[in-house]
Amino acid sequence: MIVVMDRNYTSNDVERVVSYIKEKNLEVTISKGKDSCIIGILGNTSTLDLQELYRIKSVKDIKKIKEPFKKSNRLFHPEDTIININGNKIGGGNLGIIAGPCAVENEEQIVEIAKKVKLSGANFLRGGAFKPRTSPYSFQGLELDGLKLMQIAKQETGLSIVSELMSISYLDEFIELVDVIQIGARNMQNYDLLKQVGKTGKPIILKRGLSSTIEEWLLSAEHIMAGGNENVILCERGIRTFETYTRNTLDLSAIPVVKKYSHLPVIVDPSHGTGSSEYVESMSMAATVAGCDGLMIEVHNNPAQALSDGQQSVTPEQFDEIMKKINLLQQVKCNFR
Amino acid sequence: MIVVMDRNYTSNDVERVVSYIKEKNLEVTISKGKDSCIIGILGNTSTLDLQELYRIKSVKDIKKIKEPFKKSNRLFHPEDTIININGNKIGGGNLGIIAGPCAVENEEQIVEIAKKVKLSGANFLRGGAFKPRTSPYSFQGLELDGLKLMQIAKQETGLSIVSELMSISYLDEFIELVDVIQIGARNMQNYDLLKQVGKTGKPIILKRGLSSTIEEWLLSAEHIMAGGNENVILCERGIRTFETYTRNTLDLSAIPVVKKYSHLPVIVDPSHGTGSSEYVESMSMAATVAGCDGLMIEVHNNPAQALSDGQQSVTPEQFDEIMKKINLLQQVKCNFR
Amino acid sequence: MIVVMDRNYTSNDVERVVSYIKEKNLEVTISKGKDSCIIGILGNTSTLDLQELYRIKSVKDIKKIKEPFKKSNRLFHPEDTIININGNKIGGGNLGIIAGPCAVENEEQIVEIAKKVKLSGANFLRGGAFKPRTSPYSFQGLELDGLKLMQIAKQETGLSIVSELMSISYLDEFIELVDVIQIGARNMQNYDLLKQVGKTGKPIILKRGLSSTIEEWLLSAEHIMAGGNENVILCERGIRTFETYTRNTLDLSAIPVVKKYSHLPVIVDPSHGTGSSEYVESMSMAATVAGCDGLMIEVHNNPAQALSDGQQSVTPEQFDEIMKKINLLQQVKCNFR
Amino acid sequence: MIVVMDRNYTSNDVERVVSYIKEKNLEVTISKGKDSCIIGILGNTSTLDLQELYRIKSVKDIKKIKEPFKKSNRLFHPEDTIININGNKIGGGNLGIIAGPCAVENEEQIVEIAKKVKLSGANFLRGGAFKPRTSPYSFQGLELDGLKLMQIAKQETGLSIVSELMSISYLDEFIELVDVIQIGARNMQNYDLLKQVGKTGKPIILKRGLSSTIEEWLLSAEHIMAGGNENVILCERGIRTFETYTRNTLDLSAIPVVKKYSHLPVIVDPSHGTGSSEYVESMSMAATVAGCDGLMIEVHNNPAQALSDGQQSVTPEQFDEIMKKINLLQQVKCNFR
Repeated sequence: MIVVMDRNYTSNDVERVVSYIKEKNLEVTISKGKDSCIIGILGNTSTLDLQELYRIKSVKDIKKIKEPFKKSNRLFHPEDTIININGNKIGGGNLGIIAGPCAVENEEQIVEIAKKVKLSGANFLRGGAFKPRTSPYSFQGLELDGLKLMQIAKQETGLSIVSELMSISYLDEFIELVDVIQIGARNMQNYDLLKQVGKTGKPIILKRGLSSTIEEWLLSAEHIMAGGNENVILCERGIRTFETYTRNTLDLSAIPVVKKYSHLPVIVDPSHGTGSSEYVESMSMAATVAGCDGLMIEVHNNPAQALSDGQQSVTPEQFDEIMKKINLLQQVKCNFR
Repeated sequence: MIVVMDRNYTSNDVERVVSYIKEKNLEVTISKGKDSCIIGILGNTSTLDLQELYRIKSVKDIKKIKEPFKKSNRLFHPEDTIININGNKIGGGNLGIIAGPCAVENEEQIVEIAKKVKLSGANFLRGGAFKPRTSPYSFQGLELDGLKLMQIAKQETGLSIVSELMSISYLDEFIELVDVIQIGARNMQNYDLLKQVGKTGKPIILKRGLSSTIEEWLLSAEHIMAGGNENVILCERGIRTFETYTRNTLDLSAIPVVKKYSHLPVIVDPSHGTGSSEYVESMSMAATVAGCDGLMIEVHNNPAQALSDGQQSVTPEQFDEIMKKINLLQQVKCNFR
Repeated sequence: MIVVMDRNYTSNDVERVVSYIKEKNLEVTISKGKDSCIIGILGNTSTLDLQELYRIKSVKDIKKIKEPFKKSNRLFHPEDTIININGNKIGGGNLGIIAGPCAVENEEQIVEIAKKVKLSGANFLRGGAFKPRTSPYSFQGLELDGLKLMQIAKQETGLSIVSELMSISYLDEFIELVDVIQIGARNMQNYDLLKQVGKTGKPIILKRGLSSTIEEWLLSAEHIMAGGNENVILCERGIRTFETYTRNTLDLSAIPVVKKYSHLPVIVDPSHGTGSSEYVESMSMAATVAGCDGLMIEVHNNPAQALSDGQQSVTPEQFDEIMKKINLLQQVKCNFR
Repeated sequence: MIVVMDRNYTSNDVERVVSYIKEKNLEVTISKGKDSCIIGILGNTSTLDLQELYRIKSVKDIKKIKEPFKKSNRLFHPEDTIININGNKIGGGNLGIIAGPCAVENEEQIVEIAKKVKLSGANFLRGGAFKPRTSPYSFQGLELDGLKLMQIAKQETGLSIVSELMSISYLDEFIELVDVIQIGARNMQNYDLLKQVGKTGKPIILKRGLSSTIEEWLLSAEHIMAGGNENVILCERGIRTFETYTRNTLDLSAIPVVKKYSHLPVIVDPSHGTGSSEYVESMSMAATVAGCDGLMIEVHNNPAQALSDGQQSVTPEQFDEIMKKINLLQQVKCNFR
């Protein structure tokens, strides 16, 4: 439930609302904008007496929230969330460009790719150290050594590091070694993991589950935010459908839908979304004008030899071409509202 | 199966290949490009002796076609198909803009909308006269009267007319009264209807079925083309998934996929694709840069009062805004190859 | 909307309700059970004054119908519909067994299969004469000759004939030559075809569309019934999902769902539903105890040589085994209260 | 890859094959049946010289395995796996009946339900102590206290205990307090969790993910088995489709498919599978004759007041009715092979 104050509200009015709500043992969030103040009420609101609330000065409107997610709901937080990672902003029109190989393979590989994607305009380096693989017999990643190689690449290029965390056992190492923790699609509803990263202050990229609705995705963000960590970046990466010419079906309409319902940044991964490097350029361009806040693109210096997901990785040269087009498009990208 | 001739081929060489194939009672298609000639073989090719074919002068390569569609396959026809309708081209980089109401309601409505969308840059007027409605108790359209009202709008504006045909019983009237026949998603595999429109020379817009794969869609195009009508325009309009925040999931990756496998133009209907007018702008922009050959957008002068699909129709003013952005984006849209 | 009369209603009371409704230009259906009478109102009921209706003697309750389908709705028609075809009943606990090849190939084939399936207990012979094929280059069926061969098999065995109609052009021949007209999954929303068969008195098997919800399926039945033909048999035949080990996902829960919402018989096609002959026995058994009103099973005397769908056809010997188990299971099948 | 020995093989022959494979650092599994012996080879088999293998006495055939799962593959292990839990067998025709509430609420509730379901024929008690809830604001379970209450119910009834583990942090407590660890659908690809339970000897129920293919499900079983724990019971619980009249679409064809490809037991959860108590009877019956190895049914003494999932729970009386029918049906259930 949210309480909308009218434009002449005073902090005294807000305080009266807040104390009334707290009396009922409910949690409160306050968002002050230029001419308005929105007070969110979390928890079981059935014990509230709306008439009493309406009697408080400056209370203009009280709205039930249909959506079950709250902290991630734009109603509670009308302004776009902008996440600043070492000076690189994601959200509110600021595009974060995350590029790198599916899996870190060795120092030479990760450093070379890092240098090249930086030159083309990336501000984040992605790389898998712990790989969630459908088969236990596939390459599972270099694990902690992979993270250390990414650190070297960071020192050489200044790029911030993004890598996927699969187990709470390695949380401390991730807090130390990466700048953004990625939660993969398969773990989108691993609530134990979400809860643990929710206790940290690290920015989290939360990938959409293969067959998760947007509502479930925002509720998973809520699991993280409920722990106090509001630095959540949503990442659309394709959903499972019956179509077989693409690995997944990239749901670009998720961009305007998320923008409508949530204030969180939403980025797009066209590499997993389509599963094929030849569709990455058109989908990156489409995502940009559709209003996303960033792109996550798999880049490999030698896709044919990649230890995983080679067919969906673009070369540094192709990535450079894509970035040139993205830069042109940013001037005409879709504005919401 | 296709036979690729080398660049020094002569028409005599081609003739020898063709006569060999015809001897085996197979059908032949010939595509001559600048430096190459591709000869397509339709039918059961198991009776061919490939060694004999290779012995013919200038035969460079013989390829099996994995895809079951043939006339719509880009392998047989490497150049983009461009369809010219009263001077308006669709395909090969030419964007056709089709706008209008879901259903024709009366003369005033259709003429007013037609004038407005023309001013904003549309070159086709869409309008439903026969409506495929899930319930037999919903408004089924004005039927032939609807087509006649569209004719009036055409006379007033010069816009070409697009309308959906649901029954072979009205084929003659459609041939007379509309410029482009639309086959709706529900009839994408109504093979009897496809066969009949395949015997006409009319341009056909073939909407993708709600849960049709791209391969099935191209095979339905094949049903039309097999009858001799090669003027097929594919229209992506959203597929059925588990997501409920949008009516359908608009599959924009279908654009580069179709471009890879087929030479036919592919347009996008963001109105049905998302089911919500507020997502039409971003998805129209995304489709444009992703490389589509046209847009089909529902526009209604009074969406709240529309007899059908009001919630997905934009107003003429919104349409005008969208067109301004589309025009900017056309300069940076994705080029394939 | 439905009007429920109390148990002491007189036909005079019913008449008063009916005439009130007809005054408002709405259509009426009347279902008289032992102690109750239910009067259904079809059309736009917003013009009715419910208070006036309640004032009529014996009117006990007036209910809005949430489901958009009406004639097929069990609320209007609490008793199971039982369809009698040449003495063979389908519905209300009577199991119709429909067996035969995917496509009629020649007289010897169809007559031999007919004789064998009859011996095992089938009471209907299925066979495709007009085949809806995804590719225009696949075998399209023997067309009218196929129907004539089925007639011969009918004369030899007494089995009633079921075959699929794809085009209204052949409606007259189907009325003459088949006992039950099948509408295939791809034509489930070919409303023109539904409307035309709705004007005949022939029993219709309406297959569920590949990605149709149960609600849409019942609405398609409604399109047939709205024309006056209430002899509709629903057929579940698998829906499209992401699973690839089966051709479709057979939705057996559709049986109790249809039984809850509709009075129409529902049969199951495990051959198309799974796409694999080795799963037909278990799914036939499961469908039977789940409460279906019939089975449609593809049987071919030589599956490996079948002109279509061989991999999903069982042999006459396998069919005989299945029938033995079905007969045992009928004694313990699920009863819906 | 598997090596098939001919019927006259000696243990000496087997030893020679095994030592050859171990020389190449590959893992080996041996299944000896009555007249045959099958030797499975796990790992990268590209280094093997098949000619050398064929030269060993009694080697009859060497087959590549198309399916990527190995330890769960029936090819390696032709006999059904039967898991014995405190004397209750699941698999190979032995039906395990698991019943109980969605969530443990208090001692009275769980003990009462346990006594009743035992009387009706259940041999396992299920109950959620840690609940994976889509929203962080929903009831999350009694956690360890819940497990302790289940222990009391176990002491009173002798029923074995099944409960869901969500976090590796509680693994020790689960090993001590439950008889069967359940891995929920949302964690089917939480590989860290799978790996940890794979190191224990506890029987594991592995629920199929909402949108997981059967292949991915078997590969997740493989993640557990690769750690040495072969006591895996698969549980079909409905997949996500577009249908909305049921919460999920219960995929009963998964039963014969799993039986074909794997030796592991497969049970069915009709409560989550349909989401509605009124469909549980028909789907339980269908699953039984289709050949499943057990049922997991939600039973609540007061479904209307249940803290979670009340609408899909049956009452103890309804459960008793269902069990009577299941007992009748077991005599005619489908036999594979």
